[in-house]
Amino acid sequence: MDKVKIAIVGYGNIGKFALEAAQASDDMELVGVVRRAESLCNTPQELQNIRCVSSIDQLGKVDVAVICGPSRSVPEIAQDLLAKGIATVDSFDIHTEVWNLHCALDKVAKAHNTAAILSAGWDPGTDSVVRTLLQAMAPKGLTYTNFGPGMSMGHSVVARSKAGVKNALSMTIPVGTGLHRRMVYVELEKGASLEAVTKAIKSDDYFAHDETHVIEVPSVDAVRDMGHGVLLERKGVSGKTQSQRFSFSMTINNPALTAQILIACARAVVKQRPGAYVLPEIAPMDLLPGDKESLIKSLV
Amino acid sequence: MDKVKIAIVGYGNIGKFALEAAQASDDMELVGVVRRAESLCNTPQELQNIRCVSSIDQLGKVDVAVICGPSRSVPEIAQDLLAKGIATVDSFDIHTEVWNLHCALDKVAKAHNTAAILSAGWDPGTDSVVRTLLQAMAPKGLTYTNFGPGMSMGHSVVARSKAGVKNALSMTIPVGTGLHRRMVYVELEKGASLEAVTKAIKSDDYFAHDETHVIEVPSVDAVRDMGHGVLLERKGVSGKTQSQRFSFSMTINNPALTAQILIACARAVVKQRPGAYVLPEIAPMDLLPGDKESLIKSLV
Repeated sequence: MDKVKIAIVGYGNIGKFALEAAQASDDMELVGVVRRAESLCNTPQELQNIRCVSSIDQLGKVDVAVICGPSRSVPEIAQDLLAKGIATVDSFDIHTEVWNLHCALDKVAKAHNTAAILSAGWDPGTDSVVRTLLQAMAPKGLTYTNFGPGMSMGHSVVARSKAGVKNALSMTIPVGTGLHRRMVYVELEKGASLEAVTKAIKSDDYFAHDETHVIEVPSVDAVRDMGHGVLLERKGVSGKTQSQRFSFSMTINNPALTAQILIACARAVVKQRPGAYVLPEIAPMDLLPGDKESLIKSLV
Repeated sequence: MDKVKIAIVGYGNIGKFALEAAQASDDMELVGVVRRAESLCNTPQELQNIRCVSSIDQLGKVDVAVICGPSRSVPEIAQDLLAKGIATVDSFDIHTEVWNLHCALDKVAKAHNTAAILSAGWDPGTDSVVRTLLQAMAPKGLTYTNFGPGMSMGHSVVARSKAGVKNALSMTIPVGTGLHRRMVYVELEKGASLEAVTKAIKSDDYFAHDETHVIEVPSVDAVRDMGHGVLLERKGVSGKTQSQRFSFSMTINNPALTAQILIACARAVVKQRPGAYVLPEIAPMDLLPGDKESLIKSLV
């Protein structure tokens, strides 16, 4: 079978782990990494033998672009790539905007006879699949998604984007029943005001709905740990039978898991009909390499 | 939108709960229940206002047959129904024979332009979906499925089928790392030998691979509890990052959950292209009623 030709687009934290996940997948061929032009003169060790370019057009045939940039850059990048007929996967994580992005990418993907899997991280992403499955198993009831304790990459990026912030780490602390506290550790630029930074962070839509504390630290690196976790709980009714209880939990390296899911979705996206999909719209078996018979015999 | 016209085929333990799950689903229309001819003169309270027949041909248009008989009767019943152009769902639970049944039903379904979802209980079934998802999230590693403590319907049916057994209850006890002990409580026919019954049970393929104890009790009813559970654990590698840990557990009424999954699959099967599918081949969102926009906004 032909290998899936993938390009990693954006080489930050997730991009680095996506490189590792691609290298660990026998059915993937990494065609190259797309980076900002100004980064190309500064090639880290692990990219020495990998083609790095500033435009995907320089890479020849690419089946799937694995978008590893920050969420807010995803809509534009994904639409550009789909318009070139290249399938995309991304881990866009702004829950309230997923449906709009779904509609936008669906239109472009169909117009160019290709496919996109959006919001393909762990939440939104695999957690969404678990929530969907649990709702099918017990249609009436409540699901609580409790995150952490762990660093939220999306929230950290947003905190870091505020004027006066040199570096930031946003920790998500579960307080039960799906509620969370945000503990934001910031390293400030010289002369920046903690008060102004705190206000800018707390008023951002990413933080506005949760209890948020902003704390200045001398070094964000010194307090960073990429471990994360989730506890997803449902108590509900199957048919007319009450109190069916379900629990899903994990303790994981956050960017490593996100990147692995992106790579699994790069495998799945080439099997889909034209259009855009979130993970609960994908048959889970499409995420795995191997023939159907072996998969069914080992997993079902 | 038109309701899905379903028939329940077989009215034992799972059939009773399937009736409740169908009645709790607004998008389902229960056309009737297919029972053995000899049962038709003995109609329980809850079937008083429901059409009961001995052949599905008496029911008029049926979109999906929900097969609620024992696993060993499934292959023949499913193929007969598919050959009539009726989609089927079943909870066939003999893991080692799932692939063969998949091939057989796929052929008949495609020949008659319809679809089947087989082995659509919780294991095989939703647990298979979780195992598939976890393998995508951490491709290298080990998954352990620990069942119980709880009654295994499949094993109880097999134990009950042995000569000399009046009634039987097989309890599954987890002993860790995916290993189990089977505790089989039997009520014997007059004059039956416990030794012969024990030998018949232990040599059946359902029990031959596990530590099995057969214990005679005066009343199986007195020790029966339909609660069950599972603890599914994986520790594995995402990309090159070790020790990613995942856990899925549930405490549930067994036939109620199985029946609910069958009903969710009755909804999903009419959305599939002709052929046979196990649950990991189905997009989880197909299991739910409602429009795509609402589902994505609430679950993703």
